[in-house]
Amino acid sequence: MVEAIDAIAAEIAPKLIGYRRDFHRHAESGWVEYRTASLVARRLANLGYTVHVGSTALSDGERMGLPEPAFLAAQWERAREQGADPVFLEEMRGGMTGVVGELRRGQGPTVALRFDLDALDIDEDQTPAHRPFREGFASLNSNMMHACGHDAHTAIGLGVAEVLARVDDRLRGTLKLIFQPAEEGVRGAKAMVAAGVLDDVDYLVGHHVRSGSAVGEIICGMGGWAATVKFDAWLQGAPAHAGGNPQSGRNALLAAATAIQNLYAISRHGGGSTRVNVGRLEAGTGRNVIPAHAHLVAETRGETQELSDYMYARAMQVLEAAAGMYSCELLVKRMGEAQSAQSDQELSERVQRVAERMGGFRFFAPLSTGGSEDFTFMMRRVQQQGGMATSVGLGADYHGISQAATEGRDGVLGAHTSLFDLDERVLQVAVRLLSAVTLDLMKPRPAL
Amino acid sequence: MVEAIDAIAAEIAPKLIGYRRDFHRHAESGWVEYRTASLVARRLANLGYTVHVGSTALSDGERMGLPEPAFLAAQWERAREQGADPVFLEEMRGGMTGVVGELRRGQGPTVALRFDLDALDIDEDQTPAHRPFREGFASLNSNMMHACGHDAHTAIGLGVAEVLARVDDRLRGTLKLIFQPAEEGVRGAKAMVAAGVLDDVDYLVGHHVRSGSAVGEIICGMGGWAATVKFDAWLQGAPAHAGGNPQSGRNALLAAATAIQNLYAISRHGGGSTRVNVGRLEAGTGRNVIPAHAHLVAETRGETQELSDYMYARAMQVLEAAAGMYSCELLVKRMGEAQSAQSDQELSERVQRVAERMGGFRFFAPLSTGGSEDFTFMMRRVQQQGGMATSVGLGADYHGISQAATEGRDGVLGAHTSLFDLDERVLQVAVRLLSAVTLDLMKPRPAL
Amino acid sequence: MVEAIDAIAAEIAPKLIGYRRDFHRHAESGWVEYRTASLVARRLANLGYTVHVGSTALSDGERMGLPEPAFLAAQWERAREQGADPVFLEEMRGGMTGVVGELRRGQGPTVALRFDLDALDIDEDQTPAHRPFREGFASLNSNMMHACGHDAHTAIGLGVAEVLARVDDRLRGTLKLIFQPAEEGVRGAKAMVAAGVLDDVDYLVGHHVRSGSAVGEIICGMGGWAATVKFDAWLQGAPAHAGGNPQSGRNALLAAATAIQNLYAISRHGGGSTRVNVGRLEAGTGRNVIPAHAHLVAETRGETQELSDYMYARAMQVLEAAAGMYSCELLVKRMGEAQSAQSDQELSERVQRVAERMGGFRFFAPLSTGGSEDFTFMMRRVQQQGGMATSVGLGADYHGISQAATEGRDGVLGAHTSLFDLDERVLQVAVRLLSAVTLDLMKPRPAL
Amino acid sequence: MVEAIDAIAAEIAPKLIGYRRDFHRHAESGWVEYRTASLVARRLANLGYTVHVGSTALSDGERMGLPEPAFLAAQWERAREQGADPVFLEEMRGGMTGVVGELRRGQGPTVALRFDLDALDIDEDQTPAHRPFREGFASLNSNMMHACGHDAHTAIGLGVAEVLARVDDRLRGTLKLIFQPAEEGVRGAKAMVAAGVLDDVDYLVGHHVRSGSAVGEIICGMGGWAATVKFDAWLQGAPAHAGGNPQSGRNALLAAATAIQNLYAISRHGGGSTRVNVGRLEAGTGRNVIPAHAHLVAETRGETQELSDYMYARAMQVLEAAAGMYSCELLVKRMGEAQSAQSDQELSERVQRVAERMGGFRFFAPLSTGGSEDFTFMMRRVQQQGGMATSVGLGADYHGISQAATEGRDGVLGAHTSLFDLDERVLQVAVRLLSAVTLDLMKPRPAL
Repeated sequence: MVEAIDAIAAEIAPKLIGYRRDFHRHAESGWVEYRTASLVARRLANLGYTVHVGSTALSDGERMGLPEPAFLAAQWERAREQGADPVFLEEMRGGMTGVVGELRRGQGPTVALRFDLDALDIDEDQTPAHRPFREGFASLNSNMMHACGHDAHTAIGLGVAEVLARVDDRLRGTLKLIFQPAEEGVRGAKAMVAAGVLDDVDYLVGHHVRSGSAVGEIICGMGGWAATVKFDAWLQGAPAHAGGNPQSGRNALLAAATAIQNLYAISRHGGGSTRVNVGRLEAGTGRNVIPAHAHLVAETRGETQELSDYMYARAMQVLEAAAGMYSCELLVKRMGEAQSAQSDQELSERVQRVAERMGGFRFFAPLSTGGSEDFTFMMRRVQQQGGMATSVGLGADYHGISQAATEGRDGVLGAHTSLFDLDERVLQVAVRLLSAVTLDLMKPRPAL
Repeated sequence: MVEAIDAIAAEIAPKLIGYRRDFHRHAESGWVEYRTASLVARRLANLGYTVHVGSTALSDGERMGLPEPAFLAAQWERAREQGADPVFLEEMRGGMTGVVGELRRGQGPTVALRFDLDALDIDEDQTPAHRPFREGFASLNSNMMHACGHDAHTAIGLGVAEVLARVDDRLRGTLKLIFQPAEEGVRGAKAMVAAGVLDDVDYLVGHHVRSGSAVGEIICGMGGWAATVKFDAWLQGAPAHAGGNPQSGRNALLAAATAIQNLYAISRHGGGSTRVNVGRLEAGTGRNVIPAHAHLVAETRGETQELSDYMYARAMQVLEAAAGMYSCELLVKRMGEAQSAQSDQELSERVQRVAERMGGFRFFAPLSTGGSEDFTFMMRRVQQQGGMATSVGLGADYHGISQAATEGRDGVLGAHTSLFDLDERVLQVAVRLLSAVTLDLMKPRPAL
Repeated sequence: MVEAIDAIAAEIAPKLIGYRRDFHRHAESGWVEYRTASLVARRLANLGYTVHVGSTALSDGERMGLPEPAFLAAQWERAREQGADPVFLEEMRGGMTGVVGELRRGQGPTVALRFDLDALDIDEDQTPAHRPFREGFASLNSNMMHACGHDAHTAIGLGVAEVLARVDDRLRGTLKLIFQPAEEGVRGAKAMVAAGVLDDVDYLVGHHVRSGSAVGEIICGMGGWAATVKFDAWLQGAPAHAGGNPQSGRNALLAAATAIQNLYAISRHGGGSTRVNVGRLEAGTGRNVIPAHAHLVAETRGETQELSDYMYARAMQVLEAAAGMYSCELLVKRMGEAQSAQSDQELSERVQRVAERMGGFRFFAPLSTGGSEDFTFMMRRVQQQGGMATSVGLGADYHGISQAATEGRDGVLGAHTSLFDLDERVLQVAVRLLSAVTLDLMKPRPAL
Repeated sequence: MVEAIDAIAAEIAPKLIGYRRDFHRHAESGWVEYRTASLVARRLANLGYTVHVGSTALSDGERMGLPEPAFLAAQWERAREQGADPVFLEEMRGGMTGVVGELRRGQGPTVALRFDLDALDIDEDQTPAHRPFREGFASLNSNMMHACGHDAHTAIGLGVAEVLARVDDRLRGTLKLIFQPAEEGVRGAKAMVAAGVLDDVDYLVGHHVRSGSAVGEIICGMGGWAATVKFDAWLQGAPAHAGGNPQSGRNALLAAATAIQNLYAISRHGGGSTRVNVGRLEAGTGRNVIPAHAHLVAETRGETQELSDYMYARAMQVLEAAAGMYSCELLVKRMGEAQSAQSDQELSERVQRVAERMGGFRFFAPLSTGGSEDFTFMMRRVQQQGGMATSVGLGADYHGISQAATEGRDGVLGAHTSLFDLDERVLQVAVRLLSAVTLDLMKPRPAL
């Protein structure tokens, strides 16, 4: 069977690169992946999948960090002009950009694979030193760039969809291919979970390409994601002339400064590692006006859910007290959220055994990332109902990047930079592996 | 008439010095002026005054900054041993150390003079360089020293009492000699006002000796006292092992640090000058324990009552918010209070005319002190009911002090230092003046 | 003579309104008053004045708060398109927008009048409720609006220039009409002083229109301007991933928060009133990045120069220490500066006598504004060399504004708001007065 | 052999309890263990050990957190009156309270055991509920109490000394019994290491009694101590009258508050857990005086030495900057220090095998304490020179304590509380084990 998969994967390899470059060129940031998502939906439909979009894929009210309506509308137009599928596009208005492709093949387990769609808010490098520019697939969209590899993930998803559609007689059970919007900022997964997409899943497999690791290197069972809450806080005070009657102002900047000092001073926790950051602050207007507003862009993290809850609760207490100290009104909005989670060892080992049988992989031990991923929402839901979940790390280091790391320029070229790129051979590798893993999980069982 | 007063004042001058040195040697701090007050009461009674002590002189519940009961009791014993009057002492238990001597002489205005009794919490210098030590009248009482001249004020009060008792046929109306405890820390006047002592007063005259100004120099109409609140704040959190589980503590020191930064940062006010100070902080216990308590000793001031209210209200808001930020309980206690006040110009000028008639004075313009005095509570009460009040500044610079000022060592020798002393010639001068002013205010009016 | 002036002023009154509306419509903010300044220079030249522009009017290096070169260049183009005088415009490249018109008429004193040219960084209201919009002279330029009356000041300057040019046979001495750029933010006067413009001036007269005061109301001898420094501070730290290795960042936002708390907590001063404000803060970039930079827009003030120096020195100490605490680099740039100053009483009274002779004025006592004005640099220079200076306040309340004040909406309609307007009758009044004052100061003296 | 040891241990068990209660009754805090140490030295000498005291046991200059000379002298007198050994006492003046007993028995390894001597700064409970009080061995010394079990450790040391002296013909090599002062506050070990006491040691064994664990429960190989620095910081500013001229003060309390906020806000570290605490702050004097001094009692910790160094370096940077912000002078003094360390697995397992052979133990897995111990200085020195070190945890829960823990009153009765007590059966158990381990390590090797 592995041979059949290998053959199809090799056959479609050039197409995978084409997909990836097309998505890269039309990079779309979270909640406006209109073009990407509608084309994915169209392709899944063409391959014979039942396609879920709109509220069956995504719970409207649970979406976090949604952009302003005007932005959503303008981007929708942009996507239309850039060749989105008109039918699905219509159903995605207002940022409903989640897609699930489903294939029911009789009795058997429900297996789900997850692929994320969105780009980052980064302007891509537009110089010849950068291959995507040099070869003509740099992002056309301002302040949107696939600098984290989700373009590859989406292309892999389409590849897996094709392979499995072509060998679907070997499948027993239900296959779900989940294409998630707004992973950056950990904003989208929770809304797909809330829509019930994961409710019947027995096995859930995610993956992520990794820079700093060569193609063929693999980690079965990524883990150690920190739970996190991303939030914005607004403090609203009152302005006053700073020379004439400063006392009549309510100083939102002083409230913010007090909050910031005390946010970073939230006590360390004996139960494990925690984090807090105020990544951005904008406050005030004129030089001689008591600053009347402040906007904080912040996040808290915890090694476990309990630690994350502790940090967020303390952060709220600090912000409320600081606001009260200066008679400011406080508004806090959750902009994203992820949970801590661990890959199930049993499923991770099963993935590894499949990979061993396929050959061509070099295995590395499970790794605690310390970062955050909202795939964790999906993992937890599956695990809660007795299923198993795992995430696979796949080396995709682009030549220039590993070299840069050696030269200490890692920060310049790595993920989340304007010069990010990846080794496109990972596309075929990932399609082979994920297809094979799915076949293994869904293979017909002998009758008892 | 002035001649009669002059003669008596000259006659009793040595006695005044004796009084002053006796009070100086047995200096007693606020609310424990048992010996001083009981001897004053005894002397007034002997001179024929009706003497009010206890709750007719002082409203028990309005006393601020009262020491602990154990301290009050121990000092009462100390006073007994140091020769307090046993009869009045008995009535002063628990810190009821206010005294009013009253002389009713028919129809006429009610005139009140005020003298303060208490010493400062300072250890007096015990070296030969300091005259009180050299001449054997340095304070016997630890951490109690007359370093502000109230010993002289009390001696002057007894002198005035004697002079006026001896010329009482020249008086029409009611004379009240008010001996106030606990002026330092502005703790005592409010309680005498609350007891009704000032309720019938038409003319109120206070005075203060002044270092940095020679004997004979006089200011009629001191003013510009800032309104102030003296308060202590206690923050109570919870301890925790700083290594093992710091998060379970509630850090009272961090709450205090946050409060302190924001107290000093209370906005300046367009309406005039304001002040805030946290003079002392004590917090925490062991090095490796999250500090669970903090004690702040603080004050706010304002050029006007409104400004003082603004500062105090903001201080409370800051403290409450800081406590809330760390889930600490906050207790605030007012330890003292004074109001802003101004001398009445008409009464001040009348005092000056009397002084001009007496001769021997050099006049200086009214001065805004910027400091605080709780005599202001008495002034305001009298002014509220249509009476007039003034305060007189009397030069009493001791040779060493003015010289020190010239040499820039003013801070070493001036008021509130362990080397403070005064020119005792001020005693006779003050007795002459205050007696003459009283006679002028109470002189018989021709029948209509 | 007054009659002649009155007649000319009446004759040119419609022209004055035209000037004012033209300048209002083409409002230009500080250092880019290219159109206004070049047209003023052209008009002065046409009237026969010797015109100084460039480095004889303005010391290049002493200009504070200069915009970026790109902005200067773009605005220069804008001004060209909006009808600036091409000859003078050429000499004003790079923000050299100061103009001095000089008229030498033999032996006699040098008299200078000062007019400021610049608009504020405000978007003007574009609704029918706002007369300038309704009548078609609202600002065409984005984020630039004459909301402080400098359009009127410039128009008055041109009116005075015309009147005095037409009666110049009555003048003895030298007349200087100083048109100053960049008064807002107190950025421009120092550079004109540094160019020597005031070095020979015996009498200096400034003026300002006042909302909240009706046309005809006048204050001769404004004063009490606070000394101030306007400064920007930049803190540069280092970014780091807030989850992975926060310790490798150098947190510029925490440095800024620490600085801000301690800036507002700079001790009040016993010598008089002080102020400090951080009107704006922008810091950081991404939510999960330790913020690596912060930009503070701040000011300090003092009732006297000494107090202003105290505040600025302490502010620098606080900023440097906060930067050092987080290993950040600190850059501070002075963006504006004004001194404390007082009008000379003698000259103020002389202005008042002229006004009394002219009739039609209601006089109000000199007023301490508490605000800041960089006209003070000019006043001090003249006073230092033995000359006299004064500033005149002229009522120009627009109907809607005084009514609004009554209704408590003063903040909505007053100076520095998007709805500001003024009573244009002040133009004629001011031209009459300033022309008459100049004539009085420069009138021929009888030979001895 | 084990039988011989068991027999001796059983024989001396009552004596061990006697020792422990005597030391408990005469509890002595760090650097004033004059009585305890001199009696230990006397006993070791009587048993035939070569005894090292003074500078061969303790490097004078490396002692941290030494009390004031007056306190040292007074306590020396107290110890003399309480029956210290007069000869050794003389050699211990000035807090030289370390003792090493040495037994050389030919060729073989050098084995060292360590026992700590000092009590805590706690007033022992003096109520019948507390057994030491009830049975007459509560501490006689004010603010000194054995609330951590070092009284038991010292008694165990004397027991081991006796057992091994009585079986010394079975020993080959050198035995060192190290009695260390001032473990509380991690102040003493470094000075014994600096004196060279550990320089020739091949095997080092420490132990600690544990509450919350029953007698017979044992952990072979305690570890995970955090590296820590204990330090005091003094800020010296300048006082000023808070009403009159606050600006002339240099506010040490504001500097301290700024430091404290930023100390707790020191960035968490990606490399592992860190801690910081300011356990106590005392600042200022009078309410109306700008506070001129502040004293902080603080500590930093890190899971590894590198993390500890990071925390301490950042703490110093914060303190220096805060001092500079308010022109205060900063003095910092290291009051204690411990390193991170791990028990050697090989030696820990050897101890466990000995215990298994002895029988009567229940084994628990090695535990990371998270606390700090300056035994780590000794462990690291031995490990650096190729030796091995381990620490053994021995259950000694007193009945009331484990019950209390169950009832959630652990904080009331546990270590470092005024109600601490221990199960004295641990004395015999520990003597047996440590003697047997030593014999095992020093047993004669067959000639090759």
